[in-house]
Amino acid sequence: MTKNKQVNAAIIIIGNEILSGRTKDTNTNSIALWLNSIAVKVQEVRVIPDIQEIIVNTVKDLKKKNDYVFTSGGIGPTHDDITAESISKAFDLKYEIHKNAFKILEEYYKPGEFNEGRQKMAWMPSQAKLIENPTSGAPGFIVENVFCLPGVPSILKSMLGGLKNEISGGQPILSYTINLRTVESEIAKSLTNIQKKNKGVEIGSYPFFKAGKVGVSIVLRSEDKNKITACNKEILQLVDEKKIQLINQVN
Amino acid sequence: MTKNKQVNAAIIIIGNEILSGRTKDTNTNSIALWLNSIAVKVQEVRVIPDIQEIIVNTVKDLKKKNDYVFTSGGIGPTHDDITAESISKAFDLKYEIHKNAFKILEEYYKPGEFNEGRQKMAWMPSQAKLIENPTSGAPGFIVENVFCLPGVPSILKSMLGGLKNEISGGQPILSYTINLRTVESEIAKSLTNIQKKNKGVEIGSYPFFKAGKVGVSIVLRSEDKNKITACNKEILQLVDEKKIQLINQVN
Repeated sequence: MTKNKQVNAAIIIIGNEILSGRTKDTNTNSIALWLNSIAVKVQEVRVIPDIQEIIVNTVKDLKKKNDYVFTSGGIGPTHDDITAESISKAFDLKYEIHKNAFKILEEYYKPGEFNEGRQKMAWMPSQAKLIENPTSGAPGFIVENVFCLPGVPSILKSMLGGLKNEISGGQPILSYTINLRTVESEIAKSLTNIQKKNKGVEIGSYPFFKAGKVGVSIVLRSEDKNKITACNKEILQLVDEKKIQLINQVN
Repeated sequence: MTKNKQVNAAIIIIGNEILSGRTKDTNTNSIALWLNSIAVKVQEVRVIPDIQEIIVNTVKDLKKKNDYVFTSGGIGPTHDDITAESISKAFDLKYEIHKNAFKILEEYYKPGEFNEGRQKMAWMPSQAKLIENPTSGAPGFIVENVFCLPGVPSILKSMLGGLKNEISGGQPILSYTINLRTVESEIAKSLTNIQKKNKGVEIGSYPFFKAGKVGVSIVLRSEDKNKITACNKEILQLVDEKKIQLINQVN
């Protein structure tokens, strides 16, 4: 992949516990922040239940549409962990014991503790490439452009760093934030005009409430630093004209 | 809708700021918990960017597949707030000033403060039904089975309660949690067998780490209380046989 191309990814969060509200998903944010830092743009996130047919269809759909797909959840030892088997089906691969994963797990556990439940974590799509797990032994895995990670947030986070060499990002997406003491409606019309004149910059407007005071964060995102600089100049001019208090600017 | 039917919903989170990782989504969890409490099952969540074509297609797709669809985000006063216009397109309705929304907003703001930016929040699909906003004036809206809510978490939460009469839930989904001082692999095989014998109960297994100690929450979910009781009995028997410490049971 060349550095001029935009590189896209999708995230699939697998788990009934997120859909029922029992568990608050934080893995989307961890993966999104990390991908953003290596210049990969997340296009879409889906949260889906532990149902094989749905996992298979969602993976098949999103792996075609994106450069990379990340899944989180469903690779543990219990009956409701069906991601590895589903990924095998999605790629039409055998679901079998991965010799190297088996070896890693066998060495990780004390003699006699590598029981049937734990052995299940060595079952993967054939030819899967392992993702090292520095926290709890059980590896994740990669099949073509699909990266399968666990659902436990701390373990997932510990595994992302090791993936840097597996992924080629695109042109880095630069971001610049201008925090203003105002309300959105005060600047909405002018911001619309500035957006129209600055097509190469994505201008986001996000109200916030902090320490009892309201404000708006204007976020400029682009692959081109000059375009951000030009757009920022217009916004600072607007701030000046409207006599709005500028809280700060953050790179 | 009768009380015997399962009632399904999908959630669409609209916003580039979630996909870039800038903002952590908590609205999925708020909506999911609330729907769960009124016996509506969330089947799917999608996080999508502020792009009209994608919003239109996602809404069209999910409104057919689900009894209810909830959107969050994109109904504010700025140029990147394009949900109302997109919903109009998805339903082939005019995008126009909603007289009642205009009146509510006009009364909410002080004289002279109801500017063009704020007036934008009265633009909606024609014939939209308003959702009252007890926090900040600007109403959400309903078109057929699609409910459009704002992205600011505190405002979204304040609006959910008022929707109870708009939604008919199904058979309540009962849930029972058994917290054990064990690890998943210890009980995985037995749990698989119990799941096979208890088809009417969805058994979830979730490892946790709390105050330096590991444990597993077994969550039983079913519409039938007797089925949960029978399944729970088998799990307590397993706990007894394996001499696992039972931390507690939570209804």
